[in-house]
Amino acid sequence: MNTAEYLVKKLEELGVNEFFGLPGDYNFNLLYAVENNPNTCWIGCTNELNAGYAADGYARMRGYGALITTYGVGELSAMNAIAGSLAENVPVISIVGVPATKTIENKTCVHHNFQDVDYHACYEAHKHVTAAAAFLTRDNAKMEIDRVLKTFVKERKPVYIAVPLDIAKMEISDKEVSYDWFSDEETLRLVSNKIAAKINNAQKPVILGDLLVKRFDSRIEYKEFVEKTRIPTTNFLMGTNLIDMDYDLYLGGYYAGFENPTAEKYVNETDCLIAVGPVYTDLNAFGFNLPYKINNQIAIYGTHTYVDGEKYDNVKMSDVLEAVTKLVDSKDMKILKPAIGYEHKASSPDALTSEYIYPRLQEFIKDNDIIVAETGIIPHGVAPMKFPAAAELQTQTLWGSIGWATPAALGVCLAKPKSRVILITGEGSHQLTAMEIGNMLRRGVKPIVIVLNNKGYTIERVLSETPEDCFNDIMQMNYSKFARVFEGDVWSTKVSTADDFDKALKVTQIMNKMCYIEICTEAMDMPKLTQDLIANFKSKAPKIEAVKKEEPVKLENSGSMAFETTVHKGFTEE
Amino acid sequence: MNTAEYLVKKLEELGVNEFFGLPGDYNFNLLYAVENNPNTCWIGCTNELNAGYAADGYARMRGYGALITTYGVGELSAMNAIAGSLAENVPVISIVGVPATKTIENKTCVHHNFQDVDYHACYEAHKHVTAAAAFLTRDNAKMEIDRVLKTFVKERKPVYIAVPLDIAKMEISDKEVSYDWFSDEETLRLVSNKIAAKINNAQKPVILGDLLVKRFDSRIEYKEFVEKTRIPTTNFLMGTNLIDMDYDLYLGGYYAGFENPTAEKYVNETDCLIAVGPVYTDLNAFGFNLPYKINNQIAIYGTHTYVDGEKYDNVKMSDVLEAVTKLVDSKDMKILKPAIGYEHKASSPDALTSEYIYPRLQEFIKDNDIIVAETGIIPHGVAPMKFPAAAELQTQTLWGSIGWATPAALGVCLAKPKSRVILITGEGSHQLTAMEIGNMLRRGVKPIVIVLNNKGYTIERVLSETPEDCFNDIMQMNYSKFARVFEGDVWSTKVSTADDFDKALKVTQIMNKMCYIEICTEAMDMPKLTQDLIANFKSKAPKIEAVKKEEPVKLENSGSMAFETTVHKGFTEE
Ligand SMILES: Cc1ncc(C[n+]2csc(CCOP(=O)(O)OP(=O)(O)O)c2C)c(N)n1
Ligand SMILES: Cc1ncc(C[n+]2csc(CCOP(=O)(O)OP(=O)(O)O)c2C)c(N)n1
Repeated sequence: MNTAEYLVKKLEELGVNEFFGLPGDYNFNLLYAVENNPNTCWIGCTNELNAGYAADGYARMRGYGALITTYGVGELSAMNAIAGSLAENVPVISIVGVPATKTIENKTCVHHNFQDVDYHACYEAHKHVTAAAAFLTRDNAKMEIDRVLKTFVKERKPVYIAVPLDIAKMEISDKEVSYDWFSDEETLRLVSNKIAAKINNAQKPVILGDLLVKRFDSRIEYKEFVEKTRIPTTNFLMGTNLIDMDYDLYLGGYYAGFENPTAEKYVNETDCLIAVGPVYTDLNAFGFNLPYKINNQIAIYGTHTYVDGEKYDNVKMSDVLEAVTKLVDSKDMKILKPAIGYEHKASSPDALTSEYIYPRLQEFIKDNDIIVAETGIIPHGVAPMKFPAAAELQTQTLWGSIGWATPAALGVCLAKPKSRVILITGEGSHQLTAMEIGNMLRRGVKPIVIVLNNKGYTIERVLSETPEDCFNDIMQMNYSKFARVFEGDVWSTKVSTADDFDKALKVTQIMNKMCYIEICTEAMDMPKLTQDLIANFKSKAPKIEAVKKEEPVKLENSGSMAFETTVHKGFTEE
Repeated sequence: MNTAEYLVKKLEELGVNEFFGLPGDYNFNLLYAVENNPNTCWIGCTNELNAGYAADGYARMRGYGALITTYGVGELSAMNAIAGSLAENVPVISIVGVPATKTIENKTCVHHNFQDVDYHACYEAHKHVTAAAAFLTRDNAKMEIDRVLKTFVKERKPVYIAVPLDIAKMEISDKEVSYDWFSDEETLRLVSNKIAAKINNAQKPVILGDLLVKRFDSRIEYKEFVEKTRIPTTNFLMGTNLIDMDYDLYLGGYYAGFENPTAEKYVNETDCLIAVGPVYTDLNAFGFNLPYKINNQIAIYGTHTYVDGEKYDNVKMSDVLEAVTKLVDSKDMKILKPAIGYEHKASSPDALTSEYIYPRLQEFIKDNDIIVAETGIIPHGVAPMKFPAAAELQTQTLWGSIGWATPAALGVCLAKPKSRVILITGEGSHQLTAMEIGNMLRRGVKPIVIVLNNKGYTIERVLSETPEDCFNDIMQMNYSKFARVFEGDVWSTKVSTADDFDKALKVTQIMNKMCYIEICTEAMDMPKLTQDLIANFKSKAPKIEAVKKEEPVKLENSGSMAFETTVHKGFTEE
């Protein structure tokens, strides 16, 4: 078995059947390995960034994803996708075919290099956006693959492997190596006892579930923990739908001051916050409004746990949850459950607005649907929705790289061929990576694509000094015609009224093909949550105009967004 | 004057009037500075990689280019373009708007960061692909801008500046700083005397001009040097058209063993090679066939010169050329000038092939045209063309990142609004960045776009094990329809015969709008030069199959391409 075959086999064992990327003359040997393995196949994409996003979407649903690119030109094109996977804790491996060992040793200047030859520049650069990186040589190939994949499995973060042309074909041992890891038993006992005791003593405990529950495969354990303890539970945006929204102790999502005072009150007044897999960032938590440091409470992460500010390493989230569930008493608390989700809005011949769009989408979504929502104003429309218990929401809330959603939806479709996938993207974001629509058609996947055309970068219009700032205008195009430029079967339409949107959604249900719907609104139409957030940021923001160096304006707190905001209340991430 | 305004002003003084990029909430203050300066304007692109390529195209024609992106998501998306500019010695500055100083100091986890907050990861990564990089602070802003721009001007390579939100608005001194630098007079005298003496003593001197003559603004000095010395002259691919091809001592291009034996014989048999601005790489020199190290001869670079293997620092190419021109005697040599360029081919109703395409294009090209040719088989069709004296060829021969040419053509159009720009791209490459066609229409530029549709990645078909390897198949689309999806005025057509291509080119001459022509050939149709190159590589390549680790196959020489080739003759770049 050669190096390339070994690598592909180990990834296949992790559940990776589709490999994304583009060919290049340095990565052919890797592609042969993918093609020759009966359980893996190659999904060429229209460019490497798109391929990276697609691998990310795939990994979100399958557990792991893989990207293969060529040296320099390919790998750097995809680097932003890999960085996004790091931010969002998505395990995507970036495998790069690089020139042969001899070429490297001789520093020969072949294509995709610099005049000052440097064969390790891209590898070095990738160390900043991955959890582990390796450059294979004759001596280290197997060892390094195993080392890097161990981190991949433990940390659930992207890793990087550069494979020289000749090393890909080098025979290596395929001796079985396990990538599993196990909680430290002593620490596990200690930490679960501490947590159980704290919960048992608490008067007003609250559970806050978030992203890392999904990433560290702990949904079942999380659900059992919630149901056994009978403690009220909420979530940040990325933790949407960890618990059935109809569950009697579900508080709704936590939006720091907006729309759902119930969850906010519970979280802010708790004497014992049990955060499971939290990612405490501006857009995920809708500000930084917690009155305490999250790690000073109970915070259970994928590979470690905090209790009272103390860190306990080498304990798995699922193990901690399971152990605590066993130890803890049921609280059997009661809440006055807030209304969850939008109220039904009747369709009308009126112009389409956010007030109609999101309630209508809520109605449209069924169990087992996967919704991929792009950065921009859309997450603010989606966050307050009520989802069926088995629906799944994917967003890139921390990294927030626009263009992500379209190729990510391709990856999601391929990872879950039986699910209905609904992509909702702003047209500005869509333009960055729209060519991948053609690849969806080529692959025969059938998502419902909803492109919100609001005549530019609306979220940026709200954030910049005036909505008219011309850098937020964008190129105009005919989206529904665009979808028909590619070979493949697609139904596409453009709608501007509530009635027509309603009808279009109905049509999708009888179409056995990709449906592509352009929905048009006014430029400044936006969900209520966007309006509230912006008003809040703007009111709190001491505008930083012409800061004089001699006398720097003292800003008490850290800012997110374009303003120096003061929503931050003294919390700093670990 | 604030930091952002100062930076924009200094770039404007270097000739940058158009800034490329995408907005983001961390870079608004930079965009205001661009919009408020009466001599600069903002060119929003469809994504950051495209913007980076456009800035590269712009810089090639204007001397310098500028890219503005937002923190993390934007800058990393464009990193491959910046790396390409480094490889090809194109001075593009990557300016990134990053979160405010306080946010950074507090390590607050705002959007576009990692869970393990790291505000310097992208800056560190960029150090590997730029000649200088800075992260501005309250204390260093002006000093660092001046330091980085000095390198920009001296090295003609990309640089990077991260500007925190508040620093962009901080008042700084606009005290004049000159970015000029001057040759060391002593070294200049020494080196020019050495060179003149060597040339005067030589029996068979040859001049080989290349890329860096263009990049270091030394065309006039180069021409005077060539004409004064009356030594036969040739060029690598990237040095095309430095000298009028009708000049009696022009040997035609140097293609290491292919198509032009005259130039090869002169170069290989010379006792004194005067290389001016050489970039000695596989695809630029068509192999590594020189029988000597280029720096062991005379090799004049932008900021240093080699004579007999000795390096002389801090001398400008233009100064060295000027000084040598004064000192040297005229050789007044004679050559038997080879036929240059393709012979005219009559059009016909037959299927279109390379045999017709390139001779027809040669006929079509006029003085002052700028040809932007994409990586793939196209450069092999373009290289043997005869160009009018004032035409200009732009390729990305060393970095070779496909997709570059389309957005680069946008940059070229904006940099030279009066020139006719002809973009020639393979359809595979075009797919990576094709959305920028919409931006061309939005900007009202009018290139002639020729998209070669040969049903996949042809160059890769030739290089991989078999042409049928399915990873070289690509998505199919209707290109001429695609061009009409955008708002704007375009004439588009699809042709499959020599007659129709002929007619289409004629039509472009009466169209005062963008012309977009899809030209279709068989999948394996290719220029003769591609065929020769591949045959040569394949014949020399000891295929590296299943190299056993225990007994590694000893490859005598370094390889480029997918094969371990042996065209390399002991040369290693400095
Ligand atoms: C790669 C990247 N570039 C730039 C940005 C900055 N940015 C964030 S949202 C946005 C506009 C999104 O516009 P659109 O998709 O039309 O959404 P809208 O808010 O209008 O619904 C931009 C440019 C980003 N987040 N990612
Ligand atoms: C960004 C990037 N990805 C991948 C490659 C590898 N590569 C080089 S040429 C090529 C195919 C080009 O196809 P096309 O533009 O259709 O040109 P053709 O040779 O078919 O004329 C590929 C994939 C590359 N050079 N750059």
